[in-house]
Amino acid sequence: MYKEKRISIAVIRRLPRYYRYLGDLLDNGITRISSKELSVRMNITASQIRQDLNNFGKFGQQGYGYNVESLYEEIRTILGLGKPHDIVIVGAGKIGQAIVNYKHFERRGFKFVKIFDKNEAIVGNKINGTSIDHISNLRAYIDEHKIDFLALTVPYEACDEVMELIKGSSIRGIWNFSPVDLELPDGMIVENVHLTDSLMTLSYKLNEDSILGEYGPKK
Amino acid sequence: MYKEKRISIAVIRRLPRYYRYLGDLLDNGITRISSKELSVRMNITASQIRQDLNNFGKFGQQGYGYNVESLYEEIRTILGLGKPHDIVIVGAGKIGQAIVNYKHFERRGFKFVKIFDKNEAIVGNKINGTSIDHISNLRAYIDEHKIDFLALTVPYEACDEVMELIKGSSIRGIWNFSPVDLELPDGMIVENVHLTDSLMTLSYKLNEDSILGEYGPKK
Repeated sequence: MYKEKRISIAVIRRLPRYYRYLGDLLDNGITRISSKELSVRMNITASQIRQDLNNFGKFGQQGYGYNVESLYEEIRTILGLGKPHDIVIVGAGKIGQAIVNYKHFERRGFKFVKIFDKNEAIVGNKINGTSIDHISNLRAYIDEHKIDFLALTVPYEACDEVMELIKGSSIRGIWNFSPVDLELPDGMIVENVHLTDSLMTLSYKLNEDSILGEYGPKK
Repeated sequence: MYKEKRISIAVIRRLPRYYRYLGDLLDNGITRISSKELSVRMNITASQIRQDLNNFGKFGQQGYGYNVESLYEEIRTILGLGKPHDIVIVGAGKIGQAIVNYKHFERRGFKFVKIFDKNEAIVGNKINGTSIDHISNLRAYIDEHKIDFLALTVPYEACDEVMELIKGSSIRGIWNFSPVDLELPDGMIVENVHLTDSLMTLSYKLNEDSILGEYGPKK
């Protein structure tokens, strides 16, 4: 029955942060850390850290703390970063260009292998070493290289067309920058980067105090 | 005592989505909707919708459903979008360019009024109508125009310098694209867009089944 249990999304979203912090510790030659020290650095409570990491097994040792490297390696495995991931980008606009130029992905094992766009005029160009191909070759490329990650950076009008092209392909994960909630075929998973929603959330947070006065639970 | 209660972050993160969907309904001339219909469109349960919206007051009417326009307006107010927001961008790299070119923000009441960068060579250029100014003029501009939103799109090495420049200014909200957890002065709020973390989360989700076998709670 426990098989049905899923790790909560809040925990999952903290894992990359643990991974980043542990990577920084390693870069600085720190090999061992207590949950208390880690808690100060990451600004979350030590008990939260212990609770989070206990979801995945027993990593720490009483009186010793965490072995940074083995914890880093375990989280790397948990995050599915044990092997490199090849990603195709669909959409060579500013967002597509921004992510292919972003140096931090490669360090984490992600490689943008090809960019696809419908604009014939830019086919053959390279962005940060990654070449642009025509959208009509997308499916053949995915099939040939068994690509499973796709970054979707097209305007929302073009999303349906792309989803149609990849239906039944080896693509399993979509990193979606378009402001739509995609209808996903079975077996496909999406991670949304909804920039407008993010900016509205910031606006909400700034507005929160006045809101709690007006809309919050009344005494 | 209830004043201490905060709306949960999960609810807050759904509000922009409600706002988007209601906006689409309005664009399509739909003036009234039941929580059930909205639930089908948004792919969340009707009871979740009722529960979410009850956090902010009573919007629906039994047997009538929601008045789309008034709900839209209420959520707009809750999100702090009742008045337009002027935002400065710091960092004219690809991410800065991408967001200033992104047409959806202006529709939601956000306006990028100026981009700042340390590269003298591009000062005076315009991106999508927004001009680039030198970083040395950032603080004076913020003070003069009482800007409260700042989008931070510089490499992480440059973050400290920017944070120093805006200390004690009118900036209250930072929309942070740099892969660091900023140390915030009192009264400042951050909304992070951690792209690497997002991509790692997608990787985790794809890897989840094997993980639950190996690391998940054992029977």
